[in-house]
Amino acid sequence: MSAFSAVELIIKKRERGELTTAEINWLVENYTSGSVADEQMSAMAMAILLNGMNRREIRDLTVAMVNSGERLDYSTLRFPTADKHSTGGVGDKITLPLAPLVAVFDVAVPQLSGRGLGHTGGTLDKLEAIPGWRANLSNTEMHAQLDEIGAVICAAGSGLAPADKKLYALRDVTGTVEAIPLIASSIMSKKIAEGTGALVLDVKVGSGAFMKTFERARELAETLVDLGNDAGVKTSALLTDMSTPLGRKIGNSLEVEESVEVLAGGGPADVVELTVELAREMLRLAGKADVDVAAALKDGRAMDKWRAMISAQGGDPAAELPRAREKHVVTAEASGVIEAMDALQVGVASWRLGAGRERKEDAVQFGAGIELHAQVGETVQAGAPLMTLFTDEPARFERALESLVGAVKIGTSGAGPADAHHRKIVLDRITRN
Amino acid sequence: MSAFSAVELIIKKRERGELTTAEINWLVENYTSGSVADEQMSAMAMAILLNGMNRREIRDLTVAMVNSGERLDYSTLRFPTADKHSTGGVGDKITLPLAPLVAVFDVAVPQLSGRGLGHTGGTLDKLEAIPGWRANLSNTEMHAQLDEIGAVICAAGSGLAPADKKLYALRDVTGTVEAIPLIASSIMSKKIAEGTGALVLDVKVGSGAFMKTFERARELAETLVDLGNDAGVKTSALLTDMSTPLGRKIGNSLEVEESVEVLAGGGPADVVELTVELAREMLRLAGKADVDVAAALKDGRAMDKWRAMISAQGGDPAAELPRAREKHVVTAEASGVIEAMDALQVGVASWRLGAGRERKEDAVQFGAGIELHAQVGETVQAGAPLMTLFTDEPARFERALESLVGAVKIGTSGAGPADAHHRKIVLDRITRN
Repeated sequence: MSAFSAVELIIKKRERGELTTAEINWLVENYTSGSVADEQMSAMAMAILLNGMNRREIRDLTVAMVNSGERLDYSTLRFPTADKHSTGGVGDKITLPLAPLVAVFDVAVPQLSGRGLGHTGGTLDKLEAIPGWRANLSNTEMHAQLDEIGAVICAAGSGLAPADKKLYALRDVTGTVEAIPLIASSIMSKKIAEGTGALVLDVKVGSGAFMKTFERARELAETLVDLGNDAGVKTSALLTDMSTPLGRKIGNSLEVEESVEVLAGGGPADVVELTVELAREMLRLAGKADVDVAAALKDGRAMDKWRAMISAQGGDPAAELPRAREKHVVTAEASGVIEAMDALQVGVASWRLGAGRERKEDAVQFGAGIELHAQVGETVQAGAPLMTLFTDEPARFERALESLVGAVKIGTSGAGPADAHHRKIVLDRITRN
Repeated sequence: MSAFSAVELIIKKRERGELTTAEINWLVENYTSGSVADEQMSAMAMAILLNGMNRREIRDLTVAMVNSGERLDYSTLRFPTADKHSTGGVGDKITLPLAPLVAVFDVAVPQLSGRGLGHTGGTLDKLEAIPGWRANLSNTEMHAQLDEIGAVICAAGSGLAPADKKLYALRDVTGTVEAIPLIASSIMSKKIAEGTGALVLDVKVGSGAFMKTFERARELAETLVDLGNDAGVKTSALLTDMSTPLGRKIGNSLEVEESVEVLAGGGPADVVELTVELAREMLRLAGKADVDVAAALKDGRAMDKWRAMISAQGGDPAAELPRAREKHVVTAEASGVIEAMDALQVGVASWRLGAGRERKEDAVQFGAGIELHAQVGETVQAGAPLMTLFTDEPARFERALESLVGAVKIGTSGAGPADAHHRKIVLDRITRN
């Protein structure tokens, strides 16, 4: 005989009731085992989305999802651990230069990543553009690589938070993605189970992000930070701008290329700034506040770590990356300063070019995507190239171009936005440590 | 390629949007065919429950569910047709005497009924207590019996509103039963598809009913009446009291017994009153306003129709009904007037005794249930029998008695409620015809 009834718990939340710890544990255990059916959990997810959960309920949900699977343990590593999680954006390749950069300072980064769905890219899709690189490591391989090199980016094993895996797939098809309690418990259950000692959250704000407003992003960030610290993970968050794409390259091979530029001491200012800011915060939480992060990008130490990390997973860091067969150049319609370039529209265009997938089972095109020839705050001349679109299938250009209509705003008054050359990337910080 | 996306429609309703006619048709068609999954429909049902639907959406939903299956046609019958639907209550056996009573006046009653789930009984379960009686008729058999006898009570065939059947089963396990748009479209899609020309709704109000408050019941009744009339069915509604059980007998055999008492010209005043009121309204809508309904109960014409109707479906109207093996008498704790007897508590007790089922696949005990020795407004003496509980399994008495704690309120001041002897059954009427 069951301790609770799924229907009674759904009705309780439907009527704005508060679920007890025992009820949440029962629900997650029985959903994981299959005794609570998908159609019951989706009704519950919709009730949670519309009626909310308090902090205690969100914490209980997170803990229950962690407890649905194994929890990794890095206490025997020779380094402290720190990780980063981004809520997802357009052109957000920061994980690629960040993990090796942090590892330079003897802080290990056990980054478990995912694949892209929708207009935001997935870190694993990007790295798979590198010939030979493999995403799937055993726990033992991961541990060994962390001990030896200090950085690993790989797929989360099926043993971590299986309740979250099941619920995430369900939310995706039932219109229940955008609920803070569900987003927060999903992110944090994986990161807590992953076993990192410190965690910095990059919570994106703006058109290309899940959270379109600063208030919603801040609410999510605070929820995440509290969940992490409650679970014994030193956690803080940066709220960062996602109104416009990050960097000049969007797509899988293209983002690997730009990451390598950053690791070589170059790359776009915004990508460098965010990489350095996140590295500093991760290192601070791991007890290494007084290190010169930027220097490690300039002097090749971060690049060396990158090469070691890629090679350890079978990748050839020197290999040529896949390129798209077709390209189409979009030119500027007027001369002036680029005042805005909508992240969502550019992200959707890149997705439609083949950089992302429509359904989970689709493959991505490694070479597809967009290269921006100018970013917000820069000046363009009418008729000059504004961006180049890449795809293997020229039939995709039309729908990609459709999504770009009105995406770029060129200020022709001659007086661009005052702060145009100093776009603010980090909008706010939430720390408890 | 699909016209719409289930996720997009769920999100639209989640964000309090209005679904278009085309969207609702697409949703119902694709849910019926299986392309929209149960977990998507349950999320939609929860969004509808919490965010509502306007009248146009409810009408579209009802029409789409009617169109998901066949629609019966009684235009070739020699009688006009009228039916009744009750939203369900405790001791509500009215359909049993009502169908033959109306048929006396040459108005045919094509009553498609269901089985009980939860504390409210099911008409088919009650009639199956009669040895030999069968619930499943073909459309041809049903038509022939209506033409010959004028009354049939049978199970709805699987061809009627299959979308509703699927959605009803889903709502039952996902905590999405209590939504007026879903209740209203479920009831009316079946009744419209059933092909009746006139319909009277018995919308119950009170602790034993779905609708606990007069306002909610009235909202449901008005929605139902509008849906029926919009679909060309002359429809009206009575709002009737379900704060206390209807009649003195609750359970399957027990309710058949009491129905036969009414058909024999006797029976409890409340059951007789409601049967006559509903018959009058059905006959009025079918164009027979000037008939003496009560006389047909007194002079045996209704009983003759009953016997013919039961016999036509294989039942033996003279056979002894199954009786429970065990009984337990509950005595009055004080002397005085019964001021209240909670319908829900009595209904749950009867359910727990075995008169109802826990899960769809369970069987009911025909003899289980409760006989009340006094109703609200009547006087009892301390220590005298108040009610008798019946079951085949004495282990069930304990939980049944638990649910009766505090169910009966005996006024010991000597001055009972002013209207105690004239309990008002019909609380309101909603007519458009």
